Amino acid sequence: MDIFNNLRNEFHKEKVEQFLLDKGKQTEEALHRYLSQLQCPIPGLIEAMEYSLFAGGKRLRPALVLGSAELFDGNIQKVMPSACAIEMIHTYSLIHDDLPALDNDDFRRGKPTLHKVYGEAIALLASDGLLTLAFELLASTGNAEVVVEVARSAGVNGMVGGQYMDIIAEGKLVPMETLQEIHRKKTGALICASLRCGALLSNAFSKGLQAITEYGKHLGLAFQIVDDILNVTGDEKTLGKPVGSDKEHKKSTYPALLGLQQSQELALEHTHKAISALTCFGEKAEVFRQLALYMLLRNH
Amino acid sequence: MDIFNNLRNEFHKEKVEQFLLDKGKQTEEALHRYLSQLQCPIPGLIEAMEYSLFAGGKRLRPALVLGSAELFDGNIQKVMPSACAIEMIHTYSLIHDDLPALDNDDFRRGKPTLHKVYGEAIALLASDGLLTLAFELLASTGNAEVVVEVARSAGVNGMVGGQYMDIIAEGKLVPMETLQEIHRKKTGALICASLRCGALLSNAFSKGLQAITEYGKHLGLAFQIVDDILNVTGDEKTLGKPVGSDKEHKKSTYPALLGLQQSQELALEHTHKAISALTCFGEKAEVFRQLALYMLLRNH
Repeated sequence: MDIFNNLRNEFHKEKVEQFLLDKGKQTEEALHRYLSQLQCPIPGLIEAMEYSLFAGGKRLRPALVLGSAELFDGNIQKVMPSACAIEMIHTYSLIHDDLPALDNDDFRRGKPTLHKVYGEAIALLASDGLLTLAFELLASTGNAEVVVEVARSAGVNGMVGGQYMDIIAEGKLVPMETLQEIHRKKTGALICASLRCGALLSNAFSKGLQAITEYGKHLGLAFQIVDDILNVTGDEKTLGKPVGSDKEHKKSTYPALLGLQQSQELALEHTHKAISALTCFGEKAEVFRQLALYMLLRNH
Repeated sequence: MDIFNNLRNEFHKEKVEQFLLDKGKQTEEALHRYLSQLQCPIPGLIEAMEYSLFAGGKRLRPALVLGSAELFDGNIQKVMPSACAIEMIHTYSLIHDDLPALDNDDFRRGKPTLHKVYGEAIALLASDGLLTLAFELLASTGNAEVVVEVARSAGVNGMVGGQYMDIIAEGKLVPMETLQEIHRKKTGALICASLRCGALLSNAFSKGLQAITEYGKHLGLAFQIVDDILNVTGDEKTLGKPVGSDKEHKKSTYPALLGLQQSQELALEHTHKAISALTCFGEKAEVFRQLALYMLLRNH
């Protein structure tokens, strides 16, 4: 029995795909523009940054920033620097994840990882450059509150902290609360900050800011649970990465802790909660509703 | 003949040492305070950050921020977050420098380097945490301009760019302009930004901001030239690191490009220029005058 069956009727995949495509294109144009505006006289360094920045990412986080701004009738151009900044932060974190000291991955999205092509020293400097440029861009909006928001979500109480906890947890099954904590920090915090940035820069009303934060929290958790499920049930070709690797590495995952069925139920629960959080926005939030379904029903 | 002889009479070493001691103490108290205010529930990560942050640095950059604020009658408490942020950025850069992928150093200031004690993965995450926290602190002043200033000085057109150029230049003698460019970016930019931050946050008058920027530029260059000279003429024990290592590594240095005497003359010239830039401040800038002499006349 497919417990997601009822939702499949409400799901319009093409709407989300069009949304991600549009926002992705706008983001990539802006990324190119910001990099060239730097007028950095060191082409090799910029080239290395571009290698990872344009390696085929889905641009989910910038789409959340831009979509959130639209939800609050904000100005897309005003939030674009933040959208690109958050994508740079996401990219720097992937570069570090792939390094020999961490996951030691030779490939990402079918392409050799940055350190495989440019060496570890350049990979480090390129990622340092991306993280630092991200904060320059964020601050260029003139809104220091947004810089604080993103820095917190990316720092020791956010992404960096989550990665640390993940390393410490390696090879052992941690309690459920710890697993949730790891994911809230490691991926959830930046997803949430993306939505909040778009809202903050669009003078969101306080209840709306609360609602979008709640949406982000549950979206992030559903996203991660589905990721874990796909690592068990997914098709290697569609997924683009080996199935079963989590179990092999004795990683704490939702299926490992809860079993497959309960994991699916939990993903469904968070998707419902994400969608309910959008009630106050009415029809306007339709694309974010669809995005929550997309996260749940995807097969890669 | 000692070409610095005239200056030795004007130099009051104890004034600078007291200044660095005072500012260093204030900075360290604030650093401890900011780290504990984080209330980060991951003690191991904070511990690793503290290991490098409290490894006996001279706290030169925070002293420049605080001294600059005093020069412009600014509020020390208002600039303290920026002073600590810049020290965190300096520290993260040292952690990366020491990694096997870059300089592969086992010791810094007589202590094992961070990755030697905690492993490379934790060293990476701790440095990521420091850089990100630095921007949170900078933005917490509410002044986005200062965030932009520091991000530029630390990024691809500043420190990161200088480190990249330095790696590319390894093992070959580069032209004089390239050497200056490397140092302006690698160490000069953050020194300059430290002074400018203190000034910007203290509502510096435009001519004063220009003057302190000029001072910083020449101070940074003199600092680096003297470093290179000491690597040739210094005493290994006083210096705390091996003498002659630059020559051994075929590094482009001022003595290698200009010879020892001309390097000393150039250091003297930049010191004079740094001191002249302070004229508009009168007596008030005495400690910065002494600091320029200290940089020139130091033996470690």
